Amino acid sequence: MTGSVQALYDFSGEPGSAELTIVAGEFLTVTRQDVGEGWWEGVNDKGQTGLFPAAYVEEVKSSNPPAMPPPPLPESFADNEWNNQPTNDNQNYEVMDYWDDEWDDDSEGGGGPPPLPMPPIIPVKSSSIGDDMSLGRSDSKSTMPKKSLNRFSMFVKSGGENYIMGTLKLNVSDADKVYIVENDQGGVMWNPLTQPYVVAVASHKKESKFRGLKSFIAYQLTPTFNNIQVSRRYKHFDWLHERLEEKFSLIPIPPLPEKQISGRYERQLIERRMNQLQAFVDFVCRHPVLSQCSVWEHFLTCTDEKKWKPGKRKAEKDELVGANYFLTLQAPDKAINIYNLEQETESCSRFVHSMDIAVKVLMACSQDQTKKHQGLYKREYEKIGLSFCNLAQAFGLEEASGSDNSGLSESIRYVGDTYNDIGKLFDEQPKHDWGPLGDILHIYKGILAAFPDILTVHKDTMAKRKDCERLTLDHKMETSQLQQVIQRTDVVSYALLAEINHFHAERTTQIRKAMKSFLCEQVAFYQKIAAKLQDAYSLFEDQ
Amino acid sequence: MTGSVQALYDFSGEPGSAELTIVAGEFLTVTRQDVGEGWWEGVNDKGQTGLFPAAYVEEVKSSNPPAMPPPPLPESFADNEWNNQPTNDNQNYEVMDYWDDEWDDDSEGGGGPPPLPMPPIIPVKSSSIGDDMSLGRSDSKSTMPKKSLNRFSMFVKSGGENYIMGTLKLNVSDADKVYIVENDQGGVMWNPLTQPYVVAVASHKKESKFRGLKSFIAYQLTPTFNNIQVSRRYKHFDWLHERLEEKFSLIPIPPLPEKQISGRYERQLIERRMNQLQAFVDFVCRHPVLSQCSVWEHFLTCTDEKKWKPGKRKAEKDELVGANYFLTLQAPDKAINIYNLEQETESCSRFVHSMDIAVKVLMACSQDQTKKHQGLYKREYEKIGLSFCNLAQAFGLEEASGSDNSGLSESIRYVGDTYNDIGKLFDEQPKHDWGPLGDILHIYKGILAAFPDILTVHKDTMAKRKDCERLTLDHKMETSQLQQVIQRTDVVSYALLAEINHFHAERTTQIRKAMKSFLCEQVAFYQKIAAKLQDAYSLFEDQ
Repeated sequence: MTGSVQALYDFSGEPGSAELTIVAGEFLTVTRQDVGEGWWEGVNDKGQTGLFPAAYVEEVKSSNPPAMPPPPLPESFADNEWNNQPTNDNQNYEVMDYWDDEWDDDSEGGGGPPPLPMPPIIPVKSSSIGDDMSLGRSDSKSTMPKKSLNRFSMFVKSGGENYIMGTLKLNVSDADKVYIVENDQGGVMWNPLTQPYVVAVASHKKESKFRGLKSFIAYQLTPTFNNIQVSRRYKHFDWLHERLEEKFSLIPIPPLPEKQISGRYERQLIERRMNQLQAFVDFVCRHPVLSQCSVWEHFLTCTDEKKWKPGKRKAEKDELVGANYFLTLQAPDKAINIYNLEQETESCSRFVHSMDIAVKVLMACSQDQTKKHQGLYKREYEKIGLSFCNLAQAFGLEEASGSDNSGLSESIRYVGDTYNDIGKLFDEQPKHDWGPLGDILHIYKGILAAFPDILTVHKDTMAKRKDCERLTLDHKMETSQLQQVIQRTDVVSYALLAEINHFHAERTTQIRKAMKSFLCEQVAFYQKIAAKLQDAYSLFEDQ
Repeated sequence: MTGSVQALYDFSGEPGSAELTIVAGEFLTVTRQDVGEGWWEGVNDKGQTGLFPAAYVEEVKSSNPPAMPPPPLPESFADNEWNNQPTNDNQNYEVMDYWDDEWDDDSEGGGGPPPLPMPPIIPVKSSSIGDDMSLGRSDSKSTMPKKSLNRFSMFVKSGGENYIMGTLKLNVSDADKVYIVENDQGGVMWNPLTQPYVVAVASHKKESKFRGLKSFIAYQLTPTFNNIQVSRRYKHFDWLHERLEEKFSLIPIPPLPEKQISGRYERQLIERRMNQLQAFVDFVCRHPVLSQCSVWEHFLTCTDEKKWKPGKRKAEKDELVGANYFLTLQAPDKAINIYNLEQETESCSRFVHSMDIAVKVLMACSQDQTKKHQGLYKREYEKIGLSFCNLAQAFGLEEASGSDNSGLSESIRYVGDTYNDIGKLFDEQPKHDWGPLGDILHIYKGILAAFPDILTVHKDTMAKRKDCERLTLDHKMETSQLQQVIQRTDVVSYALLAEINHFHAERTTQIRKAMKSFLCEQVAFYQKIAAKLQDAYSLFEDQ
């Protein structure tokens, strides 16, 4: 953890010590926060490194301008209309070029089950998984804020406004229709899944081509509804993720694994990423809308190489994306109480903000604990182990000479070994508790980050509705037209409420599940330590 | 606290951090010990400053010359004959002056049980316990190496030589005689105690005089053989300790508590010191010779003010101290096999050296762990607790609004509180495991430090014996006289062997006991943590 901080107070470092003198107002870059006893290590702008009290500085807030100005928006984004027509869009051409390079030219996709599509390999070293991932992600990452701007702030100007005004005309087949229904408590919800299913993300497989010179990681997905395995690479997930974000402007799409996830060995890193993909897949499967959309279905079931490309193109050409998607929504034919609606959206906004902070803090804690388990704590227990082994060795001297047959040396060595083993337990433990908890928090971090944009889409919709109400008061709009506007904005509001309700139900269930499993593992962990020590104790009890 | 230390192990400082790379054997000057987390700051002989783990270094032993030449010995010591005649001895006059100041002038000693002698108070602040202690200790500490030199290196020149040559004549009453007997395994041992007893060091009592303006700590000792409580202050222990060291040149006297013992609060500090005094008292009680000597008996049983002073004076005038004490030893009348004897003393020397290092490492580990439990670990668990409480608070928002009645917030807060409680457990734990283990290690550290001097006394005796053998070969000494010399050096050897055997039996029993109790507490600790977490888990299980 490193970052920029600003000194709040003067602090005089003791000359000749490791302390750094800091002056109130000065900016410092923190290089270590784990010095202990309230000390941090940092470097000032003269390049001097040293320790200072953490309480004497504060994090530089985002209101402070960053040292470098942000890069200018590319023209294609700044001017681009929001209603996305992939075939006429520069960005999408690029994505397609990348895709075609990687996939279409290499006659991918297996024949029958278990189908293992074999995309061509881009020339990356087998260890450079980050590079592989970055192909899709670095692009979407750097464009994320722009895309978000594109997608939401211009909402009313583009498709959103057309939809509200009723000028958007597109054919919606029955299969495309999405239903919002009332629930028992008088609220609304997405029409529940009639046939819930799950998808197992199987143990990764390192596939290779060109006689092993090139290799990549593939993940095997097996849905319960057909039990047919498909093999997908990270970049396919990334493509899917882009489609989902494009299509659903009111549904937060769970994030894919981060490019940099913790794990010191390739095996650990891959396993961790698999678990995070499983969390992503689980989330999609549980969502009544996402789990039934056609691009997901294609991603999940296409095993036929010949059908892959057309399905992919079709998804990219899908017109029912963004605001157009609202045309597919079938909401209850009942006016929404504006006051209640505002209460609900404001409460959601507040909740999202405070859960966002809590999730970030807990996630930082989970990462920190993971690191400490594998480093600090492990070393501490090993030091204890070493100290006892030392004593055992000293006692062993006397026993070797035959003058002491107490066997105490052996017992103490066992204690030393026990603490070493406990060190190993600490090293291994995070993958059972903090890791999985971190994975679910990662999903929520992404969901919570997407929520403000979703609330903005809705806010813009409501603003347009208010415009229309004003126009009607000014007799510039027919009352009958306003009624239709209200009906349509109600559809958007219903969708938002359905999603908010889904979100709350989900997070309650999922966080509870995660807490339960975390605690279960923690209990087992400390019991295991106690049992190991009990074992060692029994050696002394018998004697 | 600053001082010179020597690296026990290599440590590679992380480049770019405040850490200092140290190499085993290297000397360092400690500049700060309050860095925390088990780190010290120091400077190496290249002038480089940085942090290193405190457990990786040890204090420079007295055998290594300090940076500054030691102050010259006061004349009274340098020329003083070793066979101590307190009334003619400057040092003892000083001690008596101090004592008289403190004790005799204030009509101390209670009348009947429970007697609470009330020594006058020296003008110290109630918080400056260290000062109070230092009265006796600082003196004995600074003179320790000199005294040791005085006591041992000059052994042969002084009383030791006289004893060996048979020129030492003193009356030894039957009560003063100490018997060394053969044991079942053909070895020798101190004549075992016929009536073993223990002494409870009761909870300290802060006594005060002058209407509370002056206060001091008193410890109540209750021996099982008479069940009569006596009250003693630290300085009385210190006086006793000096007498024991003076009297028994072949028996390592367990050390008193260190001046600086860990404990953040006065209460903790006093409790810790009480435990260490208990360990000292236990050790003396278990020793067949120490537990029966008259100065100990006086210290332990004198409740009569009028008898205290004569007893004290008598102990200070005791002639049977140092080499004179050898006259009291009654050993088996059987020549010792020189080859076996050398084997045994060399083996003991090797063992003492290696146990000494092991004890220091384990003691450093115990101090380090104690500090980490009360600082680092406690804070880590509190951080986890805070993170969960954060999440609980966010969830509480939604529950307060009535839209969520899952009760999840409360369950998560319970988890947060649980981790805070675990933090407190960590804080409290060392007094159950690392503390008591450290106390027994402290005793052994002192014993082991005394052993080399004891082995030197014996070596000097053997050297004198060899001189006599040479003289006899050169016909400068009668064979009959040599026989008597050998008989007398055999007495010294028998005493050493008895003490070595006692030491081995003791350390086997005591270290086993300490390990057993340490592990028992560790098991209970981790079980307690697991149980707390199980409690928290059950909240999620029920829902």
